[in-house]
Amino acid sequence: MNIDKMKDFSEWYNSITKEAELCDLRYHVKGFVVFMPWSVITMKKMYTMYEQALERTGHVPAWFPALIPESFLMKEKEHVEGFAPEVFWVTQAGLNPLEERLAMRPTSETAMYSMYSLWVHGLKDLPLKIYHPSQVWRYETKATKPFIRSREFYWIEAHDVFPTEESAMAQVRGDMEMTDEVMHRQFGIPFLFFRRPQWDKFAGAVDTYAADTLLPDRRTLQLPSTHMLGQNFAKSFNVKFTDEKGEEKFCWQTCYGPAISRIYAALIATHGDERGLVLPFELAPLQIVIVPIVKAENKEKVMGKCKEVEKALSASLFRVKLDDSENTPGFKYNQWEMKGVPIRIEIGERDIESGTAMVVRRDTKEKLKIKFDSLGIEIEKIATSILANLVSKADKWFKEQLTKADSMDDLGKALESHGFVRVPFCTDQKDGEACADKVKEATHANMRGSLFDSKEVPNNEKCIACGKKAEIYLYAARQY
Amino acid sequence: MNIDKMKDFSEWYNSITKEAELCDLRYHVKGFVVFMPWSVITMKKMYTMYEQALERTGHVPAWFPALIPESFLMKEKEHVEGFAPEVFWVTQAGLNPLEERLAMRPTSETAMYSMYSLWVHGLKDLPLKIYHPSQVWRYETKATKPFIRSREFYWIEAHDVFPTEESAMAQVRGDMEMTDEVMHRQFGIPFLFFRRPQWDKFAGAVDTYAADTLLPDRRTLQLPSTHMLGQNFAKSFNVKFTDEKGEEKFCWQTCYGPAISRIYAALIATHGDERGLVLPFELAPLQIVIVPIVKAENKEKVMGKCKEVEKALSASLFRVKLDDSENTPGFKYNQWEMKGVPIRIEIGERDIESGTAMVVRRDTKEKLKIKFDSLGIEIEKIATSILANLVSKADKWFKEQLTKADSMDDLGKALESHGFVRVPFCTDQKDGEACADKVKEATHANMRGSLFDSKEVPNNEKCIACGKKAEIYLYAARQY
Repeated sequence: MNIDKMKDFSEWYNSITKEAELCDLRYHVKGFVVFMPWSVITMKKMYTMYEQALERTGHVPAWFPALIPESFLMKEKEHVEGFAPEVFWVTQAGLNPLEERLAMRPTSETAMYSMYSLWVHGLKDLPLKIYHPSQVWRYETKATKPFIRSREFYWIEAHDVFPTEESAMAQVRGDMEMTDEVMHRQFGIPFLFFRRPQWDKFAGAVDTYAADTLLPDRRTLQLPSTHMLGQNFAKSFNVKFTDEKGEEKFCWQTCYGPAISRIYAALIATHGDERGLVLPFELAPLQIVIVPIVKAENKEKVMGKCKEVEKALSASLFRVKLDDSENTPGFKYNQWEMKGVPIRIEIGERDIESGTAMVVRRDTKEKLKIKFDSLGIEIEKIATSILANLVSKADKWFKEQLTKADSMDDLGKALESHGFVRVPFCTDQKDGEACADKVKEATHANMRGSLFDSKEVPNNEKCIACGKKAEIYLYAARQY
Repeated sequence: MNIDKMKDFSEWYNSITKEAELCDLRYHVKGFVVFMPWSVITMKKMYTMYEQALERTGHVPAWFPALIPESFLMKEKEHVEGFAPEVFWVTQAGLNPLEERLAMRPTSETAMYSMYSLWVHGLKDLPLKIYHPSQVWRYETKATKPFIRSREFYWIEAHDVFPTEESAMAQVRGDMEMTDEVMHRQFGIPFLFFRRPQWDKFAGAVDTYAADTLLPDRRTLQLPSTHMLGQNFAKSFNVKFTDEKGEEKFCWQTCYGPAISRIYAALIATHGDERGLVLPFELAPLQIVIVPIVKAENKEKVMGKCKEVEKALSASLFRVKLDDSENTPGFKYNQWEMKGVPIRIEIGERDIESGTAMVVRRDTKEKLKIKFDSLGIEIEKIATSILANLVSKADKWFKEQLTKADSMDDLGKALESHGFVRVPFCTDQKDGEACADKVKEATHANMRGSLFDSKEVPNNEKCIACGKKAEIYLYAARQY
């Protein structure tokens, strides 16, 4: 591809999704894409890793219907106002009009909580922690971009119910830790965890917390978010329990939603380079490609050795392919580098004679001579080293994108060279929205929120928009 | 539960789905059920095993949109006639009416083949073998029954493209072998593999092949089917390739659809008994439950040993739970037997003294004394033995349900005591439909088709319905 993602991210991104065959945009429904095998194999692994993390923290899976009656969606006033403009409506079934319109789920609160009210009675039923891997459909009016924003996306939604506010808040922290464990440490995607300003929260929530990363163009992308729902939905859907004293109380709820297809966008944007995809070893559809270097006179010998290595590595449960096509070695190098295969093994006659294979890392482009009989063990080590390298490289760049400013002018300048800019702000409550609008107009940046758990409080500083006393630090960023 | 499934299967089935918390029928959209954790954990494992089998036979996963434009559905005439009465139609998005109605996919041929026509060009692109794990929606007018027939079901659809009729037919055979490997040998569900009569094939197919099992009431349930599509869809969707001679040709296609939620119904119906679920070890959400037998004076000692055993078995990657609730041992036995946990370990003071635990198999109810330090190894053996026992027990019963008849009267009698009855029939081509209708009227049975690969041909026998020369043996059964 030979496009510098730091200089022209948009072109790099459009090019990689097409050339690496990650998706096909030619499906005939606007905003819907076909996810092709090379991306789906990785996203399926991402699903599994996320589900394992959810199960380790006490969640169990369930499957809820894709269709939600309009009357359910109406039960939480803010929720329906937020989602109604985005709903695909089913109005007919077979040859008959339906009595009540059905929404294709844009999110499942209302479907799930109508059941939760039947399932939760007492303390023995709590906490209830259920996740549902699914697709949701939203009639987005913003421009769509494959994986990043489309009208159908693949996610997991986890909906938890607690007897107290404290236990619900502990789950918000647990979700942040899970995001760090899976998305940061296993996928290598850095993020800041924000509490969103009140004017930018999920429809129906008390508070929204979200993990925001940065793409190479320094615009931020919202990744998993946790919504502290308080008792709002519990009251609308009558989710109650009887406490130790025999008193009926409304439950406290949280929900967490990692959008796998969007996290995949962050994965490829974070690690990719001018040659194409770069994938963590665990997530790569193909982990090792073997490229034979043959001449007419040694073809049999070299191919024999290549097959032997392929067999041994397959037996060690690596996902390995011997590329025995008629293409030239150079063509094969380019092709598999573009696809992000983490390790290439080149084997020619000289390698066989020296008893070593040439092993090339996709991430660092390093070349290593490794003895044939220690290939398996060494590749295990390289796999670990690849992930560590990707994480540290991503973290380093991400940290360089953080800075501070204390006036609107400085913010504007800072955004030219940084991603997240911390500024003193009057308030993150409803009253602050007018100031956020001013920031947006002056700098095209949005106020993403305050850092979760941060103890930093402005001391004698002024809001960059209104000049009043700043009560809080918020982070500004241009966003997707 | 204490219901004999052989005597009153319907009551047994309704009772088990409720008592074991497999699904909840109280969701407010008719024909849609909520699949609860205990069934979903098993169905997720069934998905994984099926997907692994598909991948071993050269399939790769992809994700196609849930919405299909009406004009796509219209392209194959028989297909749209078959499915249009069953479609949920999306007609509005947000506040706007749509220009073209969108179908929630009832099946994905038309969505996928519109892309296949863009992806297949030459022999290098063939065979193309793609599977999509998904849900489909059909506005069923027949009575719904959880897992067996509902308006939303969970399945995998695999859609394959070949250059020749022979290679497509080889896939039909491959699909049958995969069904045998996964559904029969791993899940323990016996079946006959039929070629359906022409009047009962998939809308748009040349031939439909299907694996039919029997539920305990001896009615048959269709499980995975493979449709030989010939070139029908290739012509409607323009799926072509250029052959060795440079000539453009239409492709040959097959599709295969294991409905996981329906196979789950067959799984529980086949293996369950009067105490509840019986599950193969690999598919059980919980494989081992430990029940402590304690008195006040030895509680600490016994619980200590139970925890030690739980820890050791967890470390060996068994899914194990120590039931330390306040319930009585008898209550716990009933509860976990109902849930189908394959192995129960009872540990009391006497067991600790003798150095052995009491291990109880769910399938045979056998009790075995096993030394604490060989529990892991012995449980591995029992796991294998459980599956072998379930398969052979199911096979034995299934074989007893097969018989023959050579007149309408005999068929009627045979159906009182058997599931599948082989009869001589005039033809399985269109002309035979009138005879099938007569059979249906006289016996309430359907003609399910001829055995795939069978070489048996009637010799001088007469069709049981019209009395003309019988050309073929077909199997009759009452069906779901």
